[in-house]
Amino acid sequence: MKDSFEGRIDEVEIGIAEARELVARAFAATGFTADEAAIITDQIIECELRGVPNAGLSRALTLVDVARRCPPHAPITVTRETSVSALVEGGGHCGYLVAHRAVELGIEKALAHGIAVISARDTAYTGMYVHYLESAARAGLVGMAAGNSGARVAPYGATQARMGTNPIAFAFPTDSDPVIFDTGTSSVVLSELHLARRLGLEIGEGLAFDADGIPTRDPAAALAGAITVWGGYRGSGLSVAVQLLGILAGGDVQPTDESGSGFLFVAIRPDLFGEPGEFERRALEFADYARSAEPVPGGAPVRLPFDRSAQTRRELVVAGRFPASARVVAALRELAGEGSVSPRS
Amino acid sequence: MKDSFEGRIDEVEIGIAEARELVARAFAATGFTADEAAIITDQIIECELRGVPNAGLSRALTLVDVARRCPPHAPITVTRETSVSALVEGGGHCGYLVAHRAVELGIEKALAHGIAVISARDTAYTGMYVHYLESAARAGLVGMAAGNSGARVAPYGATQARMGTNPIAFAFPTDSDPVIFDTGTSSVVLSELHLARRLGLEIGEGLAFDADGIPTRDPAAALAGAITVWGGYRGSGLSVAVQLLGILAGGDVQPTDESGSGFLFVAIRPDLFGEPGEFERRALEFADYARSAEPVPGGAPVRLPFDRSAQTRRELVVAGRFPASARVVAALRELAGEGSVSPRS
Repeated sequence: MKDSFEGRIDEVEIGIAEARELVARAFAATGFTADEAAIITDQIIECELRGVPNAGLSRALTLVDVARRCPPHAPITVTRETSVSALVEGGGHCGYLVAHRAVELGIEKALAHGIAVISARDTAYTGMYVHYLESAARAGLVGMAAGNSGARVAPYGATQARMGTNPIAFAFPTDSDPVIFDTGTSSVVLSELHLARRLGLEIGEGLAFDADGIPTRDPAAALAGAITVWGGYRGSGLSVAVQLLGILAGGDVQPTDESGSGFLFVAIRPDLFGEPGEFERRALEFADYARSAEPVPGGAPVRLPFDRSAQTRRELVVAGRFPASARVVAALRELAGEGSVSPRS
Repeated sequence: MKDSFEGRIDEVEIGIAEARELVARAFAATGFTADEAAIITDQIIECELRGVPNAGLSRALTLVDVARRCPPHAPITVTRETSVSALVEGGGHCGYLVAHRAVELGIEKALAHGIAVISARDTAYTGMYVHYLESAARAGLVGMAAGNSGARVAPYGATQARMGTNPIAFAFPTDSDPVIFDTGTSSVVLSELHLARRLGLEIGEGLAFDADGIPTRDPAAALAGAITVWGGYRGSGLSVAVQLLGILAGGDVQPTDESGSGFLFVAIRPDLFGEPGEFERRALEFADYARSAEPVPGGAPVRLPFDRSAQTRRELVVAGRFPASARVVAALRELAGEGSVSPRS
């Protein structure tokens, strides 16, 4: 379910620059400042280019909808600041903006002092951590991000939701592309569950319980009940740890989908422990060594986390365009005030 | 395979105080200082009390053997120190001592400055991270530890070892017992593989490949080949991230079982982001909420990471003694210079 089914049904192609301008205009037209629109748009286009359309153009529509229903109540402010830490109060702003501020601040402090930990709270919809962590890695830092979100996920051995889908991510700069591991801790991604419901598809066996604790393959029932973790009791332990990292960051014990998430970002300058450039060289040495492992019979060559994203992005950047849903593009045009213009197909 | 099979075969009971004294004397008699012996013994007895005998008394024999075959070549020294970081050069000393020094230093710096990152290298056999992280949590800190070790584990989709069994752990202080998640990233624990080989047992399906890349259930063939990860491609990504955290700490790209491991420890003071005591209260609120989730039909109540360890320790401390292998106890007595005394049974 990595590809958007909608994309297959009403697919059009859109130029990268055109999409960027369209999304930015749609956000600007619905009350975001130009700077805010640029920050959110940047992540949305990046997700399309990395081959994650669930967090691409269609996400823009969700974010506009959330911003209209739950408008921010205060500006984004930095409090409890030390040379190596800060708390970013999100004021109910879109997580894309709040996490961006947290990561920008963390990069600045870690470059100056070797390590920094930044937390962000009073926010939701933080997007893909790989996006933030790539900027840390491009700045030469090892990064970690973790956060909690609305209760959707049952601990191992239980049928009731207690944790969010709780992403955790680590990024490492190398002498080539960074290695970035970014995963949710639920067995199925929330946006895929929403998509399956909209398309009337069943989800796999063993992935969810309904509100009565009965195993279900119906995505609507799963959304009213609980999703399982991946990795059994060990994956459940990881999800619990991520929930507590989100709570450390100031996230609610029981956030909803639309408020109360916590986001924690840690950045470390690798030359704390070696000569400048040494870690990046050794990280690439390991990455290439890992990629050289013999695949299982008939299997593809071994890929490291982020390899596929980097490859997809290289290809789409060369092509200059990417596939998108005509319905989504039309809705964005309407938001941007170009309602009557049809998308090019 | 959580319990020691050997324990079932030649089980005796030993008093906690007696075991502590015996193990400390065995280390002291084989060249460790009294302080070193006390630090290593502390972890070994703790593992027995937490119900992890594979890292208990029998581990003492392994550590003595390793210290004899690979003696340290330099003292443990702290270099590249800042107010929030340090590199601990292990000098080939036992990882139990090197990680202890790293964690002690990290706790001190984090209490003073809010966050600290300490790395340790030129070491091996670091033991159970839960042990170090419990001291961080008892000091009121959120802790993370990660490290790499000898190449034993194949990336997802490969049949050749590239990563170590690579533990990662997170600890959180609460108003009650801490929550401590500590896991290796391999599908089977190395000490269980060694034990299965000694006892002539097969391991489960899908856990290992032999040196030719053929799936195997023979633990000896697995030790010569590669173990799989847990959690499929996501678990593999986690193992890659932990390997890179170990390399960040100064671990070798390809450590052996007996040298070149890197160990990274991060500690964070929770009151960076809230009032003193607030995180501990909220962490317990979440823990109790998670434990209250309805179990699967017929299932046991939900446990959080460390719950079982804490419970086992409470029971064994009340009992004042724990089961151990008579052969292992006899070997320790011999090391301690009491060769002719038989263990009480």
